[in-house]
Amino acid sequence: MEKITVKTSQRAYDVLVEEGFFVDGGIPGQVRPFAKPGERVVCISDRIVWELYGARFREQFPEAAPVLIEPGEASKNLAVLGGVFDRFAEEHLSRGGLVIAFGGGVVGDLAGFAAACWMRGVPVVQIPTTLLAMIDSSVGGKTAVDIPAGKNLVGAFHQPSLVLIDPAFLATLPEREFASGMAEMLKTGAIKSAPLFNALAETPQGVHAATEARIADCIRIKRDVVEADEFEGGLRKLLNFGHTFGHAIEVKYGYSKYTHGEAVACGLRIACALGERLGVTEPGTAARMDQALSRYGLLFEESAADLLSFIRGDKKAVLHSVDVILLRRIGEAFVHPMEFDELEARLSEFACDE
Amino acid sequence: MEKITVKTSQRAYDVLVEEGFFVDGGIPGQVRPFAKPGERVVCISDRIVWELYGARFREQFPEAAPVLIEPGEASKNLAVLGGVFDRFAEEHLSRGGLVIAFGGGVVGDLAGFAAACWMRGVPVVQIPTTLLAMIDSSVGGKTAVDIPAGKNLVGAFHQPSLVLIDPAFLATLPEREFASGMAEMLKTGAIKSAPLFNALAETPQGVHAATEARIADCIRIKRDVVEADEFEGGLRKLLNFGHTFGHAIEVKYGYSKYTHGEAVACGLRIACALGERLGVTEPGTAARMDQALSRYGLLFEESAADLLSFIRGDKKAVLHSVDVILLRRIGEAFVHPMEFDELEARLSEFACDE
Repeated sequence: MEKITVKTSQRAYDVLVEEGFFVDGGIPGQVRPFAKPGERVVCISDRIVWELYGARFREQFPEAAPVLIEPGEASKNLAVLGGVFDRFAEEHLSRGGLVIAFGGGVVGDLAGFAAACWMRGVPVVQIPTTLLAMIDSSVGGKTAVDIPAGKNLVGAFHQPSLVLIDPAFLATLPEREFASGMAEMLKTGAIKSAPLFNALAETPQGVHAATEARIADCIRIKRDVVEADEFEGGLRKLLNFGHTFGHAIEVKYGYSKYTHGEAVACGLRIACALGERLGVTEPGTAARMDQALSRYGLLFEESAADLLSFIRGDKKAVLHSVDVILLRRIGEAFVHPMEFDELEARLSEFACDE
Repeated sequence: MEKITVKTSQRAYDVLVEEGFFVDGGIPGQVRPFAKPGERVVCISDRIVWELYGARFREQFPEAAPVLIEPGEASKNLAVLGGVFDRFAEEHLSRGGLVIAFGGGVVGDLAGFAAACWMRGVPVVQIPTTLLAMIDSSVGGKTAVDIPAGKNLVGAFHQPSLVLIDPAFLATLPEREFASGMAEMLKTGAIKSAPLFNALAETPQGVHAATEARIADCIRIKRDVVEADEFEGGLRKLLNFGHTFGHAIEVKYGYSKYTHGEAVACGLRIACALGERLGVTEPGTAARMDQALSRYGLLFEESAADLLSFIRGDKKAVLHSVDVILLRRIGEAFVHPMEFDELEARLSEFACDE
């Protein structure tokens, strides 16, 4: 087992990573201390996760009331959130109770935000079941729902009380979802750890790339960034490496062509290539990134030339410029503010697949 | 001018109380520093407040974009909140922008919660226009909306960046709304300041009872409680004096018979009488409370005998007991946990008007 402690202004909490934890019945013993005795525990999950793992969950934790949502990003909205609140009320969830988020990023973001708002804050335990949620969204306290104008525009910083990660869940994760998580793992290595990036780039592809140790490495990196910049004032932006372009690509296609991780993979390529053209990124970095992405089926031919209009609409953009995250080399990222005009000129020069 | 500084974990902020502040054009000079240069300022208000004061507001602060809601508690829900978020997006409100809450408690609670959630938190300046909002809801950071299962069940602790209070707004406040605010002023005196309570009890009734100095007194008391217990773990419960019973009365009548303040006034009577019967409140306190309430038209004949079932449903209730706030004497309150069974027996003994 790997244990990582995250210290934030709201609370300090542990992230436990242990293969087989769930099947071995480890959930209730870890989770129960976070609800006051006699108080209600509610488990938010999605229909697919619950079909796979609900029976085992109920066996070991029968007193936790399930609140199920439909899987997919379409559930991450205010209407579904309202339905979750109605269920909280039915279950008499009170301030001394507990919410468990049992699923992928959508469940984690929605359940985390619901817990943040319910009676102005009840504790939440995150049990992520996708690679993306394990290494990224379950740690750090960012929760949100989407509104018609954009993704994650409405949310809260609500740190979990505990994060339980069992890599065994990855055995049932669809291949495309696994690859999406690998895009974030590669991103994590790219910004902070060349050894992690190189290990992933040289590993045989497949589910075994996401070992307990590597997941823990990703979380330690995220922990360090979150502790240094809890409310995303500066350093935390480094975690957005590849995301400014990836998000623009998602918006361009109305979130239909690529998964989030695939779009981020496109963004990683663009950011590496842009950095080399600007002369700030070590030559060869883009080729190295392409080689790593290709191992996980994440090398897409996607033009960057028309992305600026979608970047302008991004919520992190202020007025005339945007903070682009670039690499000096694999393992070292920095914030590079660019005027929109300059960025547009640079992007118009190349398609991602050049 | 009175200036009270409130220190919280989120931020320290000033509450400025000054008669004539608004008409004199004091808003933009105070407010602008809280938005980054060039960023959007949005002013949430309700139709009635905007009819009365919108023209003057726009004259002095033309660049603030108005977002208007219908007046009344019925607006404090997730659907209206969603509409406010859509307007934020239209106005390109970003993290460096600012929300102004310009109105009574409904506007303050809704706008404060909207600001708390938008991009996980933008600053909010509270400009309360009702007495209740001036002395209570605009200070302390409690924001919320209602859901079908109950009031204020969904919200956030989001401290304002500044609170601007101009008692001159009270000139246009309907008499019944003014009296409702006086119920909270009497409550504030009753729990923490006998001099304030006595001054209010002996003052000729009417709008002039709410002076700059007395409003500031109430805010200092609330400030002290909020600073000692920001997240309502214990001491802050004292502010709920009269509210457990008041809230039960509101629920009993479906929020139709009494305003919030009137229901609290009923609750103050019940809490004083209950304390005397339990032998913990100085004899004569209930009579003194009645006399003070009667000055402001707040003496209602309301039975307490059937309230327990409504108290059980209160969100602050845990399992078998409830923390009732009682007085030792005027100016001194304490938390008194009571088993439901005992409370029911005590309440069944008397109607409020005995």
